[in-house]
Amino acid sequence: MSSSSAATRRDGKAEAAGGKPPMREALVAAAFRLFLERGYEQTTVDDIVALAGVGRRSFFRYFPSKEDVVFPDHERCLADMTAFLAASATDDEPVRRVCDAARLVLRMYAENPSFSVQRYRLTRQVPGLRAYELSVVWRYERALAAYLRGRFAGHRDGTLRADVIAAAVVAAHNNALRSWLRSDARGDVSAAVDHALGYVQSAFGDAAAPPGREESDDVMVVVSRRGAPLWRVVQEIETALGRP
Amino acid sequence: MSSSSAATRRDGKAEAAGGKPPMREALVAAAFRLFLERGYEQTTVDDIVALAGVGRRSFFRYFPSKEDVVFPDHERCLADMTAFLAASATDDEPVRRVCDAARLVLRMYAENPSFSVQRYRLTRQVPGLRAYELSVVWRYERALAAYLRGRFAGHRDGTLRADVIAAAVVAAHNNALRSWLRSDARGDVSAAVDHALGYVQSAFGDAAAPPGREESDDVMVVVSRRGAPLWRVVQEIETALGRP
Repeated sequence: MSSSSAATRRDGKAEAAGGKPPMREALVAAAFRLFLERGYEQTTVDDIVALAGVGRRSFFRYFPSKEDVVFPDHERCLADMTAFLAASATDDEPVRRVCDAARLVLRMYAENPSFSVQRYRLTRQVPGLRAYELSVVWRYERALAAYLRGRFAGHRDGTLRADVIAAAVVAAHNNALRSWLRSDARGDVSAAVDHALGYVQSAFGDAAAPPGREESDDVMVVVSRRGAPLWRVVQEIETALGRP
Repeated sequence: MSSSSAATRRDGKAEAAGGKPPMREALVAAAFRLFLERGYEQTTVDDIVALAGVGRRSFFRYFPSKEDVVFPDHERCLADMTAFLAASATDDEPVRRVCDAARLVLRMYAENPSFSVQRYRLTRQVPGLRAYELSVVWRYERALAAYLRGRFAGHRDGTLRADVIAAAVVAAHNNALRSWLRSDARGDVSAAVDHALGYVQSAFGDAAAPPGREESDDVMVVVSRRGAPLWRVVQEIETALGRP
């Protein structure tokens, strides 16, 4: 099961061709089995590599520390998010764009619900993992804020708006995601996250508007069903205002 | 300089009456002198207590760890914030209330600008302190969110709105605070934070609106000046919808 080229594959699937689980995934599986059986603190890296049938060096080729094996996909997801934001068009609506970037994180959790629920419980129990998770969340938030800061560069209050919107997007995403994880992954998490992000878009959907526009006294008339959700009404207004 | 009663005083000023600095402050001063001279990692608790002229037990009476001496006032500030929010009146506008709660944190930083700037620089350099700071910020955010969740209990999307607004308030506060710290504490940080929090209030000032009304297919017509800011248009819509 040794393959030095596998370590350079981001998706960790290079070794799957032979029908055996790739070493990286085998290490994650062994680690979680032991964390659940013995507890996180009581499990050593030596225990993990013994169960996975590999050497310590193999573990550290994939994971800098025991904490990292708990969050095996965040580095890839952060890289995907950064690439996604870097590939944005200049006419992408920036708030919508960071909401779409946040959905990359959701996809990672939704791909493997039972693993995500296990990890969520583990993270609630181990203070060190809570701290690790906070630092991961912070890096996602900074990636979103950096993109928005670029988009709002030169705008009045550009960094303020960027930081606040990035924090709001992360909070909305995590509110829906954690509610789903607490429910043992029942229900449609994508719809829940869409709804949560829609709330942020309704609050900040005008953030792309260049500041200092000439005020005009033109009148805008919006007609909407009373029962329509506010975010949808706001979308209609934005269309009426010509802010795509 | 020994006084067991001092340890129970939250303000650490019990020993100042004799003209000597209180032990707690002496420990903080000694720690920061060494952190700046030698670096944080190179300074031990033994070094700190030797310079302050006290024993190790005295250090640990005030601070659970070396990291805690870097943030000596956050526990008091968190307690103050929790008490402030618990003392809220039922007719306090909730978004304004959490903004006022965030100003308690600002006051702590603004009371001692040079110490705050030193700590900011130190925290940027030491990853362990960044992680500690993230956990402190998280606790402030959860205190604000817990208050808002209580205020929005039973409202549609109550926990979502609470979490998003708490995150937005913290991000706005920190945007203004960190800009001031990076500038070596030049300028009026209170005015900068007021401005930043004003942005959040303009985005979420409607958050107190009671949700959960009967849906209907009645048509709503909103007429507004084209140049009006979106948040004001949204306010008008909410008034039209009867969500005060």
